[in-house]
Amino acid sequence: MSTIDVKNANTVEVGYDEFCGALAAHDLQALWSLQRKIMPDTPIPATQPWLWKWDTIFPLAKRAGELITIERGGDRRVLALANPGLHGLPFTSTTLWGAIQYLGPGETAPAHRHNPSAIRFVMTGSGVYTTVDGDACEMQPGDLILTPNWMWHDHNNYGDEPMVWFDGLDLPLLVNLETIFFENHPDLQQPVRGHGLSEQLHAGPGLAPAGEDRDPLNSPLLRYRWENTERELEELLRLRGGSEATVEFLNTANGGPAIRTFACQMTRLLPGARTPTRRATGSSVHVVFQGSGRSVIDGTVFEWGPGDIFVVPSWAPVDHEAGEQSDHFVLSDRPVLEAFRLYKREKLPDRQEVRGVFEPR
Amino acid sequence: MSTIDVKNANTVEVGYDEFCGALAAHDLQALWSLQRKIMPDTPIPATQPWLWKWDTIFPLAKRAGELITIERGGDRRVLALANPGLHGLPFTSTTLWGAIQYLGPGETAPAHRHNPSAIRFVMTGSGVYTTVDGDACEMQPGDLILTPNWMWHDHNNYGDEPMVWFDGLDLPLLVNLETIFFENHPDLQQPVRGHGLSEQLHAGPGLAPAGEDRDPLNSPLLRYRWENTERELEELLRLRGGSEATVEFLNTANGGPAIRTFACQMTRLLPGARTPTRRATGSSVHVVFQGSGRSVIDGTVFEWGPGDIFVVPSWAPVDHEAGEQSDHFVLSDRPVLEAFRLYKREKLPDRQEVRGVFEPR
Amino acid sequence: MSTIDVKNANTVEVGYDEFCGALAAHDLQALWSLQRKIMPDTPIPATQPWLWKWDTIFPLAKRAGELITIERGGDRRVLALANPGLHGLPFTSTTLWGAIQYLGPGETAPAHRHNPSAIRFVMTGSGVYTTVDGDACEMQPGDLILTPNWMWHDHNNYGDEPMVWFDGLDLPLLVNLETIFFENHPDLQQPVRGHGLSEQLHAGPGLAPAGEDRDPLNSPLLRYRWENTERELEELLRLRGGSEATVEFLNTANGGPAIRTFACQMTRLLPGARTPTRRATGSSVHVVFQGSGRSVIDGTVFEWGPGDIFVVPSWAPVDHEAGEQSDHFVLSDRPVLEAFRLYKREKLPDRQEVRGVFEPR
Amino acid sequence: MSTIDVKNANTVEVGYDEFCGALAAHDLQALWSLQRKIMPDTPIPATQPWLWKWDTIFPLAKRAGELITIERGGDRRVLALANPGLHGLPFTSTTLWGAIQYLGPGETAPAHRHNPSAIRFVMTGSGVYTTVDGDACEMQPGDLILTPNWMWHDHNNYGDEPMVWFDGLDLPLLVNLETIFFENHPDLQQPVRGHGLSEQLHAGPGLAPAGEDRDPLNSPLLRYRWENTERELEELLRLRGGSEATVEFLNTANGGPAIRTFACQMTRLLPGARTPTRRATGSSVHVVFQGSGRSVIDGTVFEWGPGDIFVVPSWAPVDHEAGEQSDHFVLSDRPVLEAFRLYKREKLPDRQEVRGVFEPR
Repeated sequence: MSTIDVKNANTVEVGYDEFCGALAAHDLQALWSLQRKIMPDTPIPATQPWLWKWDTIFPLAKRAGELITIERGGDRRVLALANPGLHGLPFTSTTLWGAIQYLGPGETAPAHRHNPSAIRFVMTGSGVYTTVDGDACEMQPGDLILTPNWMWHDHNNYGDEPMVWFDGLDLPLLVNLETIFFENHPDLQQPVRGHGLSEQLHAGPGLAPAGEDRDPLNSPLLRYRWENTERELEELLRLRGGSEATVEFLNTANGGPAIRTFACQMTRLLPGARTPTRRATGSSVHVVFQGSGRSVIDGTVFEWGPGDIFVVPSWAPVDHEAGEQSDHFVLSDRPVLEAFRLYKREKLPDRQEVRGVFEPR
Repeated sequence: MSTIDVKNANTVEVGYDEFCGALAAHDLQALWSLQRKIMPDTPIPATQPWLWKWDTIFPLAKRAGELITIERGGDRRVLALANPGLHGLPFTSTTLWGAIQYLGPGETAPAHRHNPSAIRFVMTGSGVYTTVDGDACEMQPGDLILTPNWMWHDHNNYGDEPMVWFDGLDLPLLVNLETIFFENHPDLQQPVRGHGLSEQLHAGPGLAPAGEDRDPLNSPLLRYRWENTERELEELLRLRGGSEATVEFLNTANGGPAIRTFACQMTRLLPGARTPTRRATGSSVHVVFQGSGRSVIDGTVFEWGPGDIFVVPSWAPVDHEAGEQSDHFVLSDRPVLEAFRLYKREKLPDRQEVRGVFEPR
Repeated sequence: MSTIDVKNANTVEVGYDEFCGALAAHDLQALWSLQRKIMPDTPIPATQPWLWKWDTIFPLAKRAGELITIERGGDRRVLALANPGLHGLPFTSTTLWGAIQYLGPGETAPAHRHNPSAIRFVMTGSGVYTTVDGDACEMQPGDLILTPNWMWHDHNNYGDEPMVWFDGLDLPLLVNLETIFFENHPDLQQPVRGHGLSEQLHAGPGLAPAGEDRDPLNSPLLRYRWENTERELEELLRLRGGSEATVEFLNTANGGPAIRTFACQMTRLLPGARTPTRRATGSSVHVVFQGSGRSVIDGTVFEWGPGDIFVVPSWAPVDHEAGEQSDHFVLSDRPVLEAFRLYKREKLPDRQEVRGVFEPR
Repeated sequence: MSTIDVKNANTVEVGYDEFCGALAAHDLQALWSLQRKIMPDTPIPATQPWLWKWDTIFPLAKRAGELITIERGGDRRVLALANPGLHGLPFTSTTLWGAIQYLGPGETAPAHRHNPSAIRFVMTGSGVYTTVDGDACEMQPGDLILTPNWMWHDHNNYGDEPMVWFDGLDLPLLVNLETIFFENHPDLQQPVRGHGLSEQLHAGPGLAPAGEDRDPLNSPLLRYRWENTERELEELLRLRGGSEATVEFLNTANGGPAIRTFACQMTRLLPGARTPTRRATGSSVHVVFQGSGRSVIDGTVFEWGPGDIFVVPSWAPVDHEAGEQSDHFVLSDRPVLEAFRLYKREKLPDRQEVRGVFEPR
């Protein structure tokens, strides 16, 4: 059996410059010249803190509704929030896809499925349901709808006004894992088995049909209604006091995250509340559902109001301050980091020094 | 409390071209123009199947040994295997860092730690130990040495010949998660508590000190000796027959992977063995430790011999054929995919049609 | 170091009878004489199938209410359902304690705690709350109330009628594990932090306060209301059809059983429904909440009506037949068996041959 | 649907004595009269601290070898260590079966299987193997052999001296769970697939055949050799210092206990070592493999030497003192308690007051 040979190795009698050229020619790179860049002392994210204004994105989404029809080949009328730090990629952070989807009256976004998982957080509108593996889930503002890994889904607007929702996907993560699968449904709309099935069987607190799989790939509950979320926020503030409350959306079968690859939360800040400065590994996207205020991210001030969306990069110091009472829907990649014990979070002792104010464009 | 407003939205009376310009100006991208690219039916990896020849990399590593000294600021004499599909990044696949490290007689690669985890698979040489959190682990050809997440490590050559090993890291994954932490040790070498401590306490089969943490971040065993690996391969072939055997390296505390973020395996093929054609999600790097043969990856033939290293991209069909008896050390990202139930593997019914032969450069 | 010695062993020159006497004298028993008894081919439970009639137990419980006052030293007015197969032990099966508790108007069962966990299933009455670690849980007929391992609890009747509930405990299991701890609270009643706290924070479907322990010892939800249970039963029957539906009560934090050591279920049978004949390892106690019918257990017919309670031993074939629509609350030790992979369940192909009718006494 | 009726309940106009009689007649027991007995403040085990002397049990085992033949119907020549606190049951504690098995030259204990799991700890002898699902495991003094849940096993003495080993089973636990299954093999001896198969594939430290089940019901390693155990004890003492070391026997596939329902440990005490006084919930059986000394259990002194076996009840204070260097094999039910978070362990501040000395009988 032949073994690794060091005796008869060629000699390469070259100077440093030629040596570097030889490396490049043979698809090699010298670590010593790039170590500090790829191994910094603390994270140096490419993801930039950024904010998209509702006043900018909604008119464009509406205009898209006039210009673009939805049909096979261009299934979704979606505007992706492309972080300017990511070299032109249509991703909001290196792990999270955030986007605005616009569905006009009478429109149907056709049925398909993919192994990236998605959530839909409804921002405005009415008269829409998303069918997920045959279960038609009504969508109301503030609702969270799951369309998990490989489940068929189509969106249907049977009302008379457009709906706009926030799409969150783990697509960038799966792109990086080079593991995307996608399939179109043979029909525009999949057959509907019923309306609100997942809520009928899985919204009973602590109740489940006997004998059910206790560790399913996805949460059996597919719709989380705003009225429940809001009640929970109110109870938390009433019972625990303070000026900040956060609710997490969970898989009703096993208490894990509603979607395995990201965390979904809703945070309420009371008027005037200012959070401590914190930082955590992993990125998060904030969708301002109600209220207005400002956040300081890594020294830059971001002013926000209803419908605005902003992203907080990994390990960036951040604090939030509510002018009026405010509700943020927050999507993050925390469970991915936790799976490998890479999640770190800390509270910083001091307020950040403000070094600038973000100018939305 | 202010809420999302759709009534007073500005109107954007622009044509399609202007509309597209407006999107770009506001950091938005239209999904309908890029959906098929980011959501293909099956994975289209950027990672290319590729092979680096020992005859090429060893002389360059040796020359680096003459040209580059190891000291603070350039800690490691490492040549990264840079996949040509990855736009100049020094990564072997989108999740795996593969590299060759060269350490000359009398040299010490100084102590540091980082949260990317690493394995070292020894290719050739003697007289070296790696100290991991105070435990000096001897390195012999065929050994696997772990330097897990955030453990101090330095490499020391006290012998009279150089050593070359393969470095495998989850660095690309952590770069994408934007979660790298790094620290230099105050001293060139960390203090040594003992030699082979992890083997003394954790190489007793099914034995562990009572009361020990049963779910540690990392395997308490840090060195997996070639003699044990080879014996296990021989037993497997003897007891189960066939012409192919694969051993997996595990965390002795909980039976999980030795390192949480990747799988390490050693595969032996008997002379003339040809594996079925398989494909799996996720990428893998093969280090040919002994023997020679060829692999067909996605229709291209790759000839390999001792010391050669090649990479198999996600979902690429692959089969291996051994000329003489061959041992491959294989590093893959399978546990990352499994954590999110994204791992898929299948055997293909037919041999691949060969469309070309890889020409190493 | 001295080692086991076989050379200098005494010789015992005795005949078989003397030998047997010698064994007994030295606290030894010969396996060969008892193997078939302790190692039968299939389970031979000591637990007998048995039934207690409401018409018998309620008048006695009521009379106890007249004869026995509740005070320190005799904390609870509880009648234990003592299985006649268990040699006088006050246990319903070898793992489950089932009992009837009676609390008159104005009475308080004083605060204490113990590591046996308990559930309370309310049979009749109103105007009572159980305080569990400061959380006052109202009790209504059909409700399930948890008083888990080591949580303070007292029961308080502030109404004008008595309440009767079923107590289920894992006490026999813990007696056998010889692991009981008990403590009286310094006061008759513990301080009340609030009313319905667990419901306010943990009855939002798929919602929980962020950052909460996801694997607590006990379910954070302490009260499971009958109205929710009944709605879930109705939905199950509506959506899945059939004439039998079973709901399981779960730990809202992790999807495990509401109490770690037993399973709680509610089964509804439609009028005329007859279940297949099944058997499972482990025992269960059925509390008939509504309706009437009969069950065949190991060949014996048990007629039941509202308030009756019966026990099904391990591996006994059983089928149930509802005359009118019927709801059974069922307590079993299934999670204990599952923890050690000792749970087996099967459907038998044939109806049981009826060999007798149970005569309640 | 008929519901629970309290209106038409019969009145029971009886005095206290008659009332008590009525309870008994209807299979009811009043909790208030028995609460302190079944709910003590701390565990009051029925299991007594007890010790069986090698000098007593070995001659009786040997005599059994002369008087009793091994054949179908009396499969095993086993003397059970029957705790005098357990009302004549042949159990060493309420959860553990401890016994001595004697197998003479040329004898075979026929093949059978049962869902109680067993371990064999070899005390003396040679020339024996136990076949476990076709894998012939050699037995040497100090070895631990597993015959887990439902695996076929027969014992075969092909040598010229008798062997004596300690049998440990979870039989009492399964008796209490009323879940015993047993089956005789059609043949006296099952077919042998090979010798030492489990060691050949699973004794490589941190190595396993790829693709193997990582959460099997039982450890894939069936024999734990004394030489490995002793080496681990020596290393532990050398590396960690102190005068006491304990090694635990684990499932090589997942790091859990070698057998799910009990913990197996080997403890070495150096000459003169005296442990702190500790107590823990759950019971344990100590088999003195080598050395001599004394233990104080709940105030009583137990002197022990090679081959002696003693039992420590739940929550009993215990400390051990080695005269000469001593090795104890210790079997306990700890994993059962841990599964339900009932395991508690503490170190007591003071030495126990000695109240008596155990007189073996």
